[in-house]
Amino acid sequence: MISDTAVVKSKKIGQGTTIREFVVVAETAIIGARCIIHPFVLIEGGVEIGDDVEIFSGVVLGKEPKGASAVARVPTCDKQVTIGNGCSIGPNAVIFQDVKIGTGCLIGDGASIRENCRIGDACLIGRYVTLNYNVSIGNRSKVMDLTHLTGNMTVGDDVFISIHVSTTNDNNLGKLGYDKARVLGPAIDNEAMIGAGASILPRVSIGRGAIVASGAVVTKDVADETLVAGVPARYVRLV
Amino acid sequence: MISDTAVVKSKKIGQGTTIREFVVVAETAIIGARCIIHPFVLIEGGVEIGDDVEIFSGVVLGKEPKGASAVARVPTCDKQVTIGNGCSIGPNAVIFQDVKIGTGCLIGDGASIRENCRIGDACLIGRYVTLNYNVSIGNRSKVMDLTHLTGNMTVGDDVFISIHVSTTNDNNLGKLGYDKARVLGPAIDNEAMIGAGASILPRVSIGRGAIVASGAVVTKDVADETLVAGVPARYVRLV
Amino acid sequence: MISDTAVVKSKKIGQGTTIREFVVVAETAIIGARCIIHPFVLIEGGVEIGDDVEIFSGVVLGKEPKGASAVARVPTCDKQVTIGNGCSIGPNAVIFQDVKIGTGCLIGDGASIRENCRIGDACLIGRYVTLNYNVSIGNRSKVMDLTHLTGNMTVGDDVFISIHVSTTNDNNLGKLGYDKARVLGPAIDNEAMIGAGASILPRVSIGRGAIVASGAVVTKDVADETLVAGVPARYVRLV
Repeated sequence: MISDTAVVKSKKIGQGTTIREFVVVAETAIIGARCIIHPFVLIEGGVEIGDDVEIFSGVVLGKEPKGASAVARVPTCDKQVTIGNGCSIGPNAVIFQDVKIGTGCLIGDGASIRENCRIGDACLIGRYVTLNYNVSIGNRSKVMDLTHLTGNMTVGDDVFISIHVSTTNDNNLGKLGYDKARVLGPAIDNEAMIGAGASILPRVSIGRGAIVASGAVVTKDVADETLVAGVPARYVRLV
Repeated sequence: MISDTAVVKSKKIGQGTTIREFVVVAETAIIGARCIIHPFVLIEGGVEIGDDVEIFSGVVLGKEPKGASAVARVPTCDKQVTIGNGCSIGPNAVIFQDVKIGTGCLIGDGASIRENCRIGDACLIGRYVTLNYNVSIGNRSKVMDLTHLTGNMTVGDDVFISIHVSTTNDNNLGKLGYDKARVLGPAIDNEAMIGAGASILPRVSIGRGAIVASGAVVTKDVADETLVAGVPARYVRLV
Repeated sequence: MISDTAVVKSKKIGQGTTIREFVVVAETAIIGARCIIHPFVLIEGGVEIGDDVEIFSGVVLGKEPKGASAVARVPTCDKQVTIGNGCSIGPNAVIFQDVKIGTGCLIGDGASIRENCRIGDACLIGRYVTLNYNVSIGNRSKVMDLTHLTGNMTVGDDVFISIHVSTTNDNNLGKLGYDKARVLGPAIDNEAMIGAGASILPRVSIGRGAIVASGAVVTKDVADETLVAGVPARYVRLV
């Protein structure tokens, strides 16, 4: 069922899919079966959506990365966006070009995911979480509301990252311009847990099953199965 | 005055109400008198809006909570949303089903309020504040921009919660799944004040008129009329 | 090229400008040449957009400031909004009335900029950054995702403010109501750098080229070319 107020140029809309009022779908977009596309959604060219996906009001899929003169790094990317079966994309979320999202993910309201990101299956990306370019997330990981994942960082499987977590990739705070060899975010291994409001500095690795306490500022690598806390973060005990 | 580009199925629109371009209103929604509904607003079924309410562009009222496979807790709720007289709802705010908001509240741009929340009269909820499920807020309380209120927490009357405040409800960081008896957020009593960037841990109670300093990580209960500060927060003095 | 689903009342649209589906443009708005206005954008009266500007989906330009009964300060402002040549405004950003943005700025997704703000040339305002009323920012400064700039504060030229930075303007946390003589935010001088998750208290000045470490809570003035860190922030060394 496609609303007669929607502007749908694609012919590739699956069976049982509902497209509501004022939706815009480009000619080269593909939408699977039994999806629900709520009002005011914009689906640009090159976007491929699986089956049983629900996309809430105001979402933008396939936004072109934009380099104004204010930006250090010139974005380059493929136009393709893939959203796996059974995903739910919350109101006003923004997915840039060249993003792949696995099956069964929940993307929260206003989450903004930049180019070259890869998200596995059954992940939760909270409300207003911002992912910078080239973030890789494994399966079953959760990133809670208002957290920022910096460019060129990795998150493993079954990781929990709480709310308001800061991650950064450049100790020179942008002073030296963008250099892919120098600008590198944290690496967070499987089953690690990062507490609310923690800050993880560039190039820091967080070990498998490690725990970072709420409010900690992590300046050095954290070993597997280790709890750290404080500003700057210090070893507390094994977990 | 209803724009001829709007899709308004409800017959219950009060006198003197303006509905602007491309608004979508469901059949079972009710809108009071002298309201202004700006473009691209989506008002779903079961939403009841009082008199003299202004709803800015891109707002979603009555969003269904969505449990993807990534979510621990299965949402259950009533479809009803109530917005009291004289409220203002900022652009792109999202109000889920089963939310009641009192009179004269200001809801900021992009604020996202989940199911089972109750907000009293004359409250201010800042921009991009996210409320999880089942948050209760009294009257005349203010929650500033980019703060997160966790599920199953309470906020009294005349409370001030500054920007970037983190609240959490689960010391196991989601590891054990959702259990209503175990997962419990903070309780913030009347007239308490929480400084910018503070973090309040699960089950902590903040006493009447207490003050939490900016950047504090509060791991234990705070008595009435007491100032705490630091990581972790320690007693500083009475106020 | 103007989509026939758009509602464009203004006659002042420059050559080579594209206006996409379901855009709403008021009669007294002015749009320059070679702009792209994506779907679901709302451009209110008194907005003036330069040449080569791209405005992404869901943006609101010229939002009226709204004083519900919950707000301390009564907003007063001019209706005019100016967006300089070559700017890019990300999806769902909200620009209130009486804001001036220079040339070549990048405004991120959902950034919300209140009345009486002035932003210079070639600035970057990150995603979901919220600017309160009367913030002044110089040229070539960057404010990263999810940061809040408080009312009545100033930022110089070539400043870098990282993610999740808190700034505040009222030590009484709103208790005494709004008084322009008392409520004053920080002043951040040219070339200063503020680390992720730092918190800067009211009236604090940050000197030229000074550095505030990640997670620091700055309660006192910081001299030029000085590094501070910790909670509360203390002198570390000259830079």
